[in-house]
Amino acid sequence: MNVIEGGVTAPKGFTAAGVACGIKKNNKKDLAIVCSEDNAVASGVFTTNVVKGHSLQVSMEHIKNGIARAIVINSGNANACVGETGHRDAKEITALTAELLHCEPEDILVNSTGVIGTKLNMPSVRSGIRSAVNVLSREGSTDAEEAIMTTDLLKKEIAVEIEIQGETVRIGGMAKGSGMIHPNMATMIGIITTDANISRSLLDKALKTCVKSTFNRISVDGDTSVCDSVFVLANGFADNDAIVKDDYEYSKFVDALMFVCTYLAKLMAKDGEGATKLIEIIVDGANDEQDAYKVVSSIAKSPLVKTTIFGEDANWGRIITAAGYSGAVFDPNLTDIAIGNILVCRNGAAVDFDEAAAKQLLKQKEITIKVNLKKGKVSDRMWTCDLSYDYVKINGSYRS
Amino acid sequence: MNVIEGGVTAPKGFTAAGVACGIKKNNKKDLAIVCSEDNAVASGVFTTNVVKGHSLQVSMEHIKNGIARAIVINSGNANACVGETGHRDAKEITALTAELLHCEPEDILVNSTGVIGTKLNMPSVRSGIRSAVNVLSREGSTDAEEAIMTTDLLKKEIAVEIEIQGETVRIGGMAKGSGMIHPNMATMIGIITTDANISRSLLDKALKTCVKSTFNRISVDGDTSVCDSVFVLANGFADNDAIVKDDYEYSKFVDALMFVCTYLAKLMAKDGEGATKLIEIIVDGANDEQDAYKVVSSIAKSPLVKTTIFGEDANWGRIITAAGYSGAVFDPNLTDIAIGNILVCRNGAAVDFDEAAAKQLLKQKEITIKVNLKKGKVSDRMWTCDLSYDYVKINGSYRS
Repeated sequence: MNVIEGGVTAPKGFTAAGVACGIKKNNKKDLAIVCSEDNAVASGVFTTNVVKGHSLQVSMEHIKNGIARAIVINSGNANACVGETGHRDAKEITALTAELLHCEPEDILVNSTGVIGTKLNMPSVRSGIRSAVNVLSREGSTDAEEAIMTTDLLKKEIAVEIEIQGETVRIGGMAKGSGMIHPNMATMIGIITTDANISRSLLDKALKTCVKSTFNRISVDGDTSVCDSVFVLANGFADNDAIVKDDYEYSKFVDALMFVCTYLAKLMAKDGEGATKLIEIIVDGANDEQDAYKVVSSIAKSPLVKTTIFGEDANWGRIITAAGYSGAVFDPNLTDIAIGNILVCRNGAAVDFDEAAAKQLLKQKEITIKVNLKKGKVSDRMWTCDLSYDYVKINGSYRS
Repeated sequence: MNVIEGGVTAPKGFTAAGVACGIKKNNKKDLAIVCSEDNAVASGVFTTNVVKGHSLQVSMEHIKNGIARAIVINSGNANACVGETGHRDAKEITALTAELLHCEPEDILVNSTGVIGTKLNMPSVRSGIRSAVNVLSREGSTDAEEAIMTTDLLKKEIAVEIEIQGETVRIGGMAKGSGMIHPNMATMIGIITTDANISRSLLDKALKTCVKSTFNRISVDGDTSVCDSVFVLANGFADNDAIVKDDYEYSKFVDALMFVCTYLAKLMAKDGEGATKLIEIIVDGANDEQDAYKVVSSIAKSPLVKTTIFGEDANWGRIITAAGYSGAVFDPNLTDIAIGNILVCRNGAAVDFDEAAAKQLLKQKEITIKVNLKKGKVSDRMWTCDLSYDYVKINGSYRS
């Protein structure tokens, strides 16, 4: 597998565009379209929040046939909690885009991200769709990425290529997400394109497998939004023999997709609102998957752990405390904790460690916390970021 | 019921002391004793964290006989996760205090709060116990309260009196707690004294009833500590006919205890680390208790809701979002949300409201958020605080 230049337009047969149509203030890009030259096999994973944005609901309906031509995404407004108008607007977005691309409205997916409870400015959206369709190109992936960003600071795009039965297959991806990020997704949107020829059921299976250990393993603030979604479109333009069985070729495809999803997910945690450090939390030795997940997610979302890492303080008491209230069954008197390569707690009790070395280690931009419960053989991993002054600043005045 | 002067020494037959013995830096008070002249009926509620401090574990053992003479609490060090030494130290604290008070070690309760993973400085603790026993007095309640504070800014004491069958009965209380505060307690310690004559089983029942809707209904940062405990000592010095039945006199006692616990719990939320506002969240119309609790606690612990209130921004989308991912079953299209007396969302959709009036309302120090699910008849209530720059400041460098 090789990392290659570009993002969602790196795979053959995809174009993209990102334009500013006036939904966001300051003339920032706010509407993106990613388009396949021909219908693609499509799959999606959506928020588990009971409250769902209107655009998201329309996508959930349109993706049922397993086919998509294009995805339209606006930022600056979540098109959520505005009543029937919201559903009507989302439907109109798909109808207009379909008309311009000469396909069926059901083949258009749509999502919106931004403020909840404010109606979309449809004149702006309509003109944005027209402009974006006009400038769709192979070079448009970065514009599209910029148009879906909200409080993101880092651009999140990547592309890779692999070989499947002699043919070069590409996978490209882009994502937005920075706050309201928590397992079972986030205020995140991920769009993945591939020119692989693969069956709908295997594409679906591959996406779910990858999302579970990537986009569902990041936490910024423990909040899960109403617009979370990851879409994958596979248009078959690579002309490989179709992947239709869970075999070696399929697993190569999954590995590459996992790489793309991991890259984007880690970037989201690293770009967490106000974040100064990426924190990787690894839990080993749990009895079962549930316990491993409980411990890893409890530590990842603890504001006390996150502020302590921001403060570059090796206060591991907060790590064992967060494990302790996670609801997992384990014996604290067996638990080991390491920060980076420094063991700070053995069998639930303090270890004398070099505070100066720990301080030095915590100055780094990427910190690993390892917790070994020494009960069973199950592991889990999650990424989060530290909690800084800037998180408060960004979120104290987001809407105003 | 009347609120009266004083705290844990307002009830007859109780003395208290708080001294500085060198556990905390800067010569701050760090060791408190609350003592009954004679053995008291005692009950306690303890942290659900799997990891439990050594002192707390000794108290859980000592309270089993339902009797206590005194409680010793140190701040500045949690006596947790230090191995066998921790248990031995806690035992020694109870033995030394018992010797000085001429009672059994099993009648002494002990707890410690502060940093995890550092051994107690026992020479300091021993001298602190001796000094504190020497200065035990009816006037010592505020000193004792000061000695259990860690990052607390507000003193938390209260006393009330009621009449039980012609006799005046008093209940006094004090508490510490400001960060690591979440349902199923907090890095909190509560000590309640009463001169009521009441059976152990009813005292126990009364405490559990009150803790459930007070100390278990506050959240500062979603973390639950390893030292949380609420103790109540009833020494019978009021000479009322013993409360031995769940009757009118018992319910008068519960009402007064509830008042004391509510007062202390709200003060803890208000004094949340870095807090500038107290937020009361009320959920009505839930199907059952579980759903009401899920929604109220999900909103109370959402960092996005808490920063939005800090920023005085009526961004109610974050409230419905937090309700949506709580795991409760409800129909978002029925949900109403009000901030103070301003309805901002009706039937899951935005209501046009006066932004200037909302801004004015959010400038207040106490904010109420009401969510009506309009599904069933069950309500719940929780208190939390906003999330400010100072929370990060306090917690970024707590240990250093």
